[in-house]
Amino acid sequence: MIFFDEYKAVDGGVCAPRGFVAGGVNAGIKANSQKNDLAVIYCEKPCTAVALYTQNKVKGAPILLTQKHLENRTAQAVVVNSGNANTCNADGLDIARQMCEITARELMLNPEDIIVASTGVIGQRLSISPIEAALPGLCASLSEAGSAEACSAIMTTDTRKKELAVEFILDGRPCKIGGISKGSGMINPNMATMLAFFTTDADISAEMLDKALRRVNAVTYNRVSVDGDTSTNDMVTVMASGLAGNGRIADEGEAYEAFVGGLYAVMMNLARETARDGEGATKLLECAVVGAASEAVAEAVAKSVIGSSLLKAAIFAADANWGRILCAIGYADADFDITRVSVELRSSYGSIIVYENGSATDFSDEEAHKLLLEDEITVYVDMHSGGAGAVAWGCDLTYDYVKINAEYRS
Amino acid sequence: MIFFDEYKAVDGGVCAPRGFVAGGVNAGIKANSQKNDLAVIYCEKPCTAVALYTQNKVKGAPILLTQKHLENRTAQAVVVNSGNANTCNADGLDIARQMCEITARELMLNPEDIIVASTGVIGQRLSISPIEAALPGLCASLSEAGSAEACSAIMTTDTRKKELAVEFILDGRPCKIGGISKGSGMINPNMATMLAFFTTDADISAEMLDKALRRVNAVTYNRVSVDGDTSTNDMVTVMASGLAGNGRIADEGEAYEAFVGGLYAVMMNLARETARDGEGATKLLECAVVGAASEAVAEAVAKSVIGSSLLKAAIFAADANWGRILCAIGYADADFDITRVSVELRSSYGSIIVYENGSATDFSDEEAHKLLLEDEITVYVDMHSGGAGAVAWGCDLTYDYVKINAEYRS
Repeated sequence: MIFFDEYKAVDGGVCAPRGFVAGGVNAGIKANSQKNDLAVIYCEKPCTAVALYTQNKVKGAPILLTQKHLENRTAQAVVVNSGNANTCNADGLDIARQMCEITARELMLNPEDIIVASTGVIGQRLSISPIEAALPGLCASLSEAGSAEACSAIMTTDTRKKELAVEFILDGRPCKIGGISKGSGMINPNMATMLAFFTTDADISAEMLDKALRRVNAVTYNRVSVDGDTSTNDMVTVMASGLAGNGRIADEGEAYEAFVGGLYAVMMNLARETARDGEGATKLLECAVVGAASEAVAEAVAKSVIGSSLLKAAIFAADANWGRILCAIGYADADFDITRVSVELRSSYGSIIVYENGSATDFSDEEAHKLLLEDEITVYVDMHSGGAGAVAWGCDLTYDYVKINAEYRS
Repeated sequence: MIFFDEYKAVDGGVCAPRGFVAGGVNAGIKANSQKNDLAVIYCEKPCTAVALYTQNKVKGAPILLTQKHLENRTAQAVVVNSGNANTCNADGLDIARQMCEITARELMLNPEDIIVASTGVIGQRLSISPIEAALPGLCASLSEAGSAEACSAIMTTDTRKKELAVEFILDGRPCKIGGISKGSGMINPNMATMLAFFTTDADISAEMLDKALRRVNAVTYNRVSVDGDTSTNDMVTVMASGLAGNGRIADEGEAYEAFVGGLYAVMMNLARETARDGEGATKLLECAVVGAASEAVAEAVAKSVIGSSLLKAAIFAADANWGRILCAIGYADADFDITRVSVELRSSYGSIIVYENGSATDFSDEEAHKLLLEDEITVYVDMHSGGAGAVAWGCDLTYDYVKINAEYRS
């Protein structure tokens, strides 16, 4: 995790901000699984709520229903299951609606104030029975200590929980932003690329909350790629309770920037952890591009590098095959002068310039191998063409990626 | 291989057309390798010659030199090595120039009439010494039986030779088109995507030869993807000797279409074999899209399907995870109505419709598994939105892809 002076990490995840409780249970959605698979997040008052959704033309039923429910930019709870994506099913919308209705009944809300999400296998009928049986107990047990249980309930092939909260000061009042996130395959920057639920007690208008989410998402989740596949069910939501008591953020300015900074601290770190926990991954692969003529060029190059299957396999082997980096930079969909580019490998072991002035440097393969044995690798690209930059995150390509995805349904 | 009535498969590869001889040897470019690594193709007379090159901004030195040599659209020989890409090296252009000069000296040609190509690791200095030592013997031994030796010399991680020739009638005269091709990783449709050398004895103008190559390449090599990486050294060339004695093809019409058909028969089959022989692949994965509103839509969908890492891993496991197919169709970069789409799996075992009218059919997973155990799988997508279609070729994603690319340099 990377922290910033003004934003202090605090415990509690999505329950850190005032007003929120959560919980997760094993409802038995997937036979023979002991892990949590059903979660609820609830706020004591209606929240300002906004979301971003997958850009895949195939959208899961929960996405379609949530889009409708958030038309008024208000929500008070989230219900989400793993183990089944409830997508491409004839009765998918009906099942998603039932999930909202049962949750609303248990929490005494309107179904329209519920955000619903599902993740897992596409195209297998989702039975409402285990969800219906588990929701009353789950809703009765929600607590301020429930974020971790909720977080584990949204995991699929994830190997670690992705949960974080930060505290910062707005108008002299402590404000918090918390989040839980999942997703380790079918992840590609084409929007939110996984499930992520954020909460805050900051008081902020729907317009500014939407603006903040779009701005931060563009440079965090949209810059993560595990395998180039964009899921049908991706969703990122933010609910703001307003209970921190700050003066309502209704336009751009200092308070808005402070809020954006906090949202960035949480979303960037969780996006980064999502890349690190990519299916089968053993390493986080970061590409930082500087000196670009524009942010668009920097972003295209950074995404191209972390998306190269060949480079990802080389990184798995700790092989400083910089030719594959150059190759990936070269096919990035952007205009630039390739002859000016320099490439440096960085990790906690040290840093090595491997390419500059149009050819390889005389670096030590042995030293580069040692550098690449670390578990966080940064490819640092200076384009020497301007002042813009961008960072993207991915992971290595391993035997386990193939294993996980060749056996997923069995 | 797929054959057409008018185009008869014949032996001889690049030496099948009149005027051409070839050969390949082990020059010892890569230490400890016993395989051929240096090839020459030569024509007894100057040929009309055209080429297409990688769209990667990083271009190998041989690409840059060949582009220059083909400005006059004339060539008489090809010299090509594997084991080293001669790319991103400070002295790369000089080495490529020396390869042409030595070949020209041995064959009594001008260096400008030589096409030069290299494939292998990027960024390691290519020594001219083993090439200089081997070229005299190689050039002295060129023969009409040499295509297979030349073909094996351009292989890198390829496991099979890709060589083919067809014969057809132009103006009552038998004409031939032959080719050799390599490339099994770093392959993505963004142009020719590998090394491929074609020869023909048809008499055709440079303009029409260029037009034919672009047209056929767009629907063959540009529709192959193994891993989404676009190499720095890709090149497809055609040399036409004119020795068949047909009336020169100088404009569009029946003879031109017959020539295009022959070029398609050779290039399509070799492109398809390249996909089948993708690094680590156990299966050819073909996606045929019909009923699209335009060819551009059909192509985007077909490429999206064969490029999905998740689907490729599922196909490796013979798992009919059609949700991943729908997902890949859904994120194709094109406008269409996803609700109209139907998806059918086909192989020599039979065919099964897995998705139509917005949801999965009630197909047998067991039967679908048996169908997918075959080694040529077609995903047949009917978009029910028009009359256009496209086919793209890829392969499954396997442990061996990771193994090959995590160990390539060692």
